[in-house]
Amino acid sequence: MPQKPIICTIDVVLLCLQGSALHVALLKRDKPPFEGGYALPGGFIHPEEDADTLDAAARMLNEKTGIASPYLEQLCTFSGAARDPRGWSISIVYYALVPAELIKPDRAPGLQLQPVDQLRTLPFDHKEIVLAAVERVRSKSSYSSLPVYLCGEQFTLPRLQAVYEAILGEPINKVSFRRKMDELDMLEPVEGALEAGRANRPAQLYRLKNQYRNRLSLSGRAMTANSDH
Amino acid sequence: MPQKPIICTIDVVLLCLQGSALHVALLKRDKPPFEGGYALPGGFIHPEEDADTLDAAARMLNEKTGIASPYLEQLCTFSGAARDPRGWSISIVYYALVPAELIKPDRAPGLQLQPVDQLRTLPFDHKEIVLAAVERVRSKSSYSSLPVYLCGEQFTLPRLQAVYEAILGEPINKVSFRRKMDELDMLEPVEGALEAGRANRPAQLYRLKNQYRNRLSLSGRAMTANSDH
Repeated sequence: MPQKPIICTIDVVLLCLQGSALHVALLKRDKPPFEGGYALPGGFIHPEEDADTLDAAARMLNEKTGIASPYLEQLCTFSGAARDPRGWSISIVYYALVPAELIKPDRAPGLQLQPVDQLRTLPFDHKEIVLAAVERVRSKSSYSSLPVYLCGEQFTLPRLQAVYEAILGEPINKVSFRRKMDELDMLEPVEGALEAGRANRPAQLYRLKNQYRNRLSLSGRAMTANSDH
Repeated sequence: MPQKPIICTIDVVLLCLQGSALHVALLKRDKPPFEGGYALPGGFIHPEEDADTLDAAARMLNEKTGIASPYLEQLCTFSGAARDPRGWSISIVYYALVPAELIKPDRAPGLQLQPVDQLRTLPFDHKEIVLAAVERVRSKSSYSSLPVYLCGEQFTLPRLQAVYEAILGEPINKVSFRRKMDELDMLEPVEGALEAGRANRPAQLYRLKNQYRNRLSLSGRAMTANSDH
């Protein structure tokens, strides 16, 4: 008897900030298993169509949410006999960070944002997957440009600092923050652009340098909350 | 026409130190493709037998090299239409670190150790996989207990420092090193055990604390070569 093939899927953990809380995008499942439940956007690899799993993840994210994320990174692979009632399965998981404005529910019916720190039970092992992605994002954020993907194209330094603080979950000393930004050397001022709607002392707007649009700027040292080291 | 199933494999990057050079274990392939070439130990997932991919990796490592590594971690998944001549494939890659003495060529015919910094071309994308594993090991070593797995069960602090230096590729200030070991809090002296064969000032032997046998001790900050920060 030929062996049942292993089920090969991709899941994408799409994260954004609402207020100061990290949220994950979930989609209402329209077929079994777990029909009607909210789960990560994902699906089967299409060998005829996808060059590799990164390509498959980008296709799925776009098909299911209408989003083309500039940053999509592999988290890791979840696997086993127990995680999917249909059989032995593999899910190669990717994560993406985007500004909340980019997530448009009219482009993706059944899409819902849930705060990652108050997740209810999810289908399959998706809760475990989301928590692993959040842990990766939090640890990677402390020494990289990763949180910038949560901002829109242009932002002030105080806004960016607030985003870092939201991810790291603690206040950051302003001097350390500015020093870390200098070290990461990833930002450039938008010439002549000041934050709109602030009469007094409008703040300069910044954007990511071109070379960091699709890849991270990394620092050898983690940002320490409220510390100057 | 039913779609050809995706080929699901596991590969293990088994690393050890010879002298001060990191080496990877390669096995002579006894069947096509690349028959006779040296490649990473690996094989197909057996859904009837393996609970998940970690389980499959441990099984394969043991079957192919006779080694039960105390530390086996997922690196990432390599995939696509181009990497295996047999078809669209996935390789979920794990890496392991062991003392060189544990690798016994008589237990594994066709096993060869190659220095990772002088790798020749390997079958499939295995060279790329080895280099990715080495990069992960080097970056993870700077803030964790990972290099300890390259030592035998008991070792002196100077020996362990030499192992860290070999992995990080640079000398480490002794005071910083000792401070980092204190911080990681992963070692305990072996009572009454001194290094054999040294008449003058024999050094104390240490071993990993029990709770770190199978999991890493992590520090929030990287060890900086020759620095005291």
